[in-house]
Amino acid sequence: MTPQNLESFVSGRWSRGQGVETILIDPVTGDELATASAKGLDLKAALDHARKHGQTSLRGLSYAERAKLLGAIADVLTTNRARYEQIAIANSGNTKTDAAIDIDGGIGTLKYYARLGQNLGAARVLLDEKPVRLAKAENYQGIHLMVPRRGVAVHINAFNFPSWGLWEKATVSLLSGVPVLAKPASATALLAHEMVRDVIAAKMLPDGALSLLVGSAGDLLAHLTSDDVIAFTGSADTAVRLRGHPNVIARSAPVNIEADSINAAVLAPDAASGSASFDAFVREVVREMTVKAGQKCTAIRRIFAPAERADAVADALQAKLLAIKVGDPRQEDVRMGPLVTRSQQSAVFEAIRRLAGEVTFVCGGPRAPTLAGINAEKSAFVAPTLMKAKDADSAQAVHDTEVFGPAATIVPYRDEQEVATLVARGGGSLVASIYGQDTDFLVRIVHEIGPSHGRLLVVDPAIASAHTGHGIAMPQCNHGGPGRAGNGEELGGLNGLRLYHQRLAVQGSTDLLASLQAKAASLH
Amino acid sequence: MTPQNLESFVSGRWSRGQGVETILIDPVTGDELATASAKGLDLKAALDHARKHGQTSLRGLSYAERAKLLGAIADVLTTNRARYEQIAIANSGNTKTDAAIDIDGGIGTLKYYARLGQNLGAARVLLDEKPVRLAKAENYQGIHLMVPRRGVAVHINAFNFPSWGLWEKATVSLLSGVPVLAKPASATALLAHEMVRDVIAAKMLPDGALSLLVGSAGDLLAHLTSDDVIAFTGSADTAVRLRGHPNVIARSAPVNIEADSINAAVLAPDAASGSASFDAFVREVVREMTVKAGQKCTAIRRIFAPAERADAVADALQAKLLAIKVGDPRQEDVRMGPLVTRSQQSAVFEAIRRLAGEVTFVCGGPRAPTLAGINAEKSAFVAPTLMKAKDADSAQAVHDTEVFGPAATIVPYRDEQEVATLVARGGGSLVASIYGQDTDFLVRIVHEIGPSHGRLLVVDPAIASAHTGHGIAMPQCNHGGPGRAGNGEELGGLNGLRLYHQRLAVQGSTDLLASLQAKAASLH
Repeated sequence: MTPQNLESFVSGRWSRGQGVETILIDPVTGDELATASAKGLDLKAALDHARKHGQTSLRGLSYAERAKLLGAIADVLTTNRARYEQIAIANSGNTKTDAAIDIDGGIGTLKYYARLGQNLGAARVLLDEKPVRLAKAENYQGIHLMVPRRGVAVHINAFNFPSWGLWEKATVSLLSGVPVLAKPASATALLAHEMVRDVIAAKMLPDGALSLLVGSAGDLLAHLTSDDVIAFTGSADTAVRLRGHPNVIARSAPVNIEADSINAAVLAPDAASGSASFDAFVREVVREMTVKAGQKCTAIRRIFAPAERADAVADALQAKLLAIKVGDPRQEDVRMGPLVTRSQQSAVFEAIRRLAGEVTFVCGGPRAPTLAGINAEKSAFVAPTLMKAKDADSAQAVHDTEVFGPAATIVPYRDEQEVATLVARGGGSLVASIYGQDTDFLVRIVHEIGPSHGRLLVVDPAIASAHTGHGIAMPQCNHGGPGRAGNGEELGGLNGLRLYHQRLAVQGSTDLLASLQAKAASLH
Repeated sequence: MTPQNLESFVSGRWSRGQGVETILIDPVTGDELATASAKGLDLKAALDHARKHGQTSLRGLSYAERAKLLGAIADVLTTNRARYEQIAIANSGNTKTDAAIDIDGGIGTLKYYARLGQNLGAARVLLDEKPVRLAKAENYQGIHLMVPRRGVAVHINAFNFPSWGLWEKATVSLLSGVPVLAKPASATALLAHEMVRDVIAAKMLPDGALSLLVGSAGDLLAHLTSDDVIAFTGSADTAVRLRGHPNVIARSAPVNIEADSINAAVLAPDAASGSASFDAFVREVVREMTVKAGQKCTAIRRIFAPAERADAVADALQAKLLAIKVGDPRQEDVRMGPLVTRSQQSAVFEAIRRLAGEVTFVCGGPRAPTLAGINAEKSAFVAPTLMKAKDADSAQAVHDTEVFGPAATIVPYRDEQEVATLVARGGGSLVASIYGQDTDFLVRIVHEIGPSHGRLLVVDPAIASAHTGHGIAMPQCNHGGPGRAGNGEELGGLNGLRLYHQRLAVQGSTDLLASLQAKAASLH
């Protein structure tokens, strides 16, 4: 690949911003791959174009017709998959497995919603609930519809999933009839750029249905109206700026935020060393720490183990982590690549140093590993770093500092009540997983830690080797979490369409409501 | 009644703030009824107390047990109803009909949710959806639970519904197991104060389940955590301050906002003068303009009529409005009382003057009416004020200025497309109502204006005299609207519990999920 100046697709055409805002690099070699800038682009015009053309066209289609568009996008992406894999390896330092999670995750989500949308048929609104009586008169009732919003969806995505992040958001938005203006994180925008270029070139989408902003968001938020919607994935800092933007607040624009969190894995008190639950726990923690070099907002950061088994857990994890080959993902035997940029590498080292006073190091640490054939001055590697909290209770950074890389901390706990309290000290998380076989305990812990989570994976021996993983956001399941995780909800089957619809009570005669129901598809 | 210094009920005891922040008056006579202040109260301690005692106690109860508490509250309020009516007349200038909407609306909502909650039985979590397969293995699936949040609900209420506003929010919160700290608007806080005093004195609620803050909110928001929830009803200006509060944003605390909006009533093109639809339309507009002297966030502000019928509408409305006797609500034949305060009266006159350039006056206007036996210098009366837009298209203030009193503007329209566009210029509303008999038109207009509303009332001849009214928020139906209306959702049956629950996906073995389902009640 030769360096290219990436363009944005706005107002129905590809346009280049002024100058260079970001240089996209290969985090193994330091090679420059491309540049990005959105400076000077007319973002108000871009939104107006999406509203005027994209919204109007999509609104004229049924759910099933829009579902077909999703299927067509998935086909285009499948055709070009090999090229995308090369881009993911080069721009994100992905292994092939990492690239598959990102690329196939996006394609899979498109296909899943294409199927769901097909089932909604010719309808253009959704029926949320059964009719309810409102008075003694039987012919006067109420129903609840979900009606598609009339604005644009602004999607601001994170650097770690340039494909999946783009499509998991665009899918539900397009299916709802709401056009998309997607802004990938600049550092890894090459994959999103190529995918959108292929989809636009295939000319299957209505004009204005899909726009791509490569570069900084400029004054985009100042031009939103109350019909528009924002969905964001990324850091808590950026989330605060988005949610607090004066125009976003003044317009009451819906904002869905999915922020990184300090996710937990919990080994149950009954899971003895060598049991199926223990082994599943160790396998999953290692996978979560090393897949995508730990750059997943859902990754396990805190490893809760009964105090008497904490050393056995440390030993088992260390043995597996040291066996992970770290290096250039172009080599077949490499199991973990670098972080996406050297600035991410610095941020991870800084976060590890913040934890250092509260932990002992089992392996790894805050310095670049020495790797054969890799220039440590140009690359962005971090060794798998396992820590162990000296004192779970008094620890603070362990519970509130996210190390967005291949790092996690073992937190020993004494009893059920303590582990529930400690897990909640994460302040709200996307996901936790629990490993054990005592059903009573598992049910209790779900109820105890549920309120501070958006998703729980409970691994008992029956599914020890059949589950889909702690960190994988399945389109069938809610993705998002309270508090620090941003208090958002994405995916979760048809529930994922709610952000793009307005819930509407209609009170009227049973005859009128029957006419409305006849044109609606059921949300449930 | 003799003036009293109202107390707040926080940290399990009644306490008085320092000095006087607000004097509560009788808006007919100008008499001072009470004073309010929350200055110096320890609001952090109040929240901690509610979390430590109220939350823990409520969490230990099932939905059915909490539903019983709601029924018991309703019983206490019913017993004291006559006293509340006198307070509503004195402090809010209510007629008996106005007082009934507020008081019985509150009691009715408590009773409605007491019934719904009874049906949820012994469960402490809700099941949101059917289980879904997640992989080829049939024994690995996902379910979605709604689990009660673990914080406090801060309820900030508006001056126009001191009873209904308090209980419609407290009801869903308590049923969900989330303790309430309610802050009524100071100017009309007497009724909320008396009601809570009676409920607390009856000792049926767990300690910390219900707190009342009479006076200003001080630093309350600075002490919220990510487990807490805010529900607000009131002006768009205050909504902006709430939503933009740094701590609220930093904690991702859920904020539900229900703000005033420029609600529309639409007379269908087919509704001829003298038809059942026409008469129902005129009746409802007059009711909406005059009930509670137009101080309802749901009240009709814009009256859309086909251009050729605009004069007939003006004549019919004027005749009925002039027949409304305005005066001291203690007199039996008075049908409309004053606004709640003289500062509200000034605000309404100012808003009417803002419209004056765009409208002609059919009746009323921006000056205090002369009323027999009423001192215009001490009272807060506004005459029913009907305006007519000179030009619907170029009008601006008509579509974006709320006159929060007995005032509305006729907006003539040419055709279906134009009326849909003009209605949407309200920028998002709580409710609109449509009057006609052509079902095809009614279905089309529901789809057209639905996206900018939270509720639509469609009045065809079958329900012309049987419906529950444009402005009445029924507990069965969604209450809230997009954009200017704040983008919130309240009530709507069990959906109203969502704000107080966290949606949680649980992935696990079918055996484990069956155990969880056995302990959950269905949300649908």
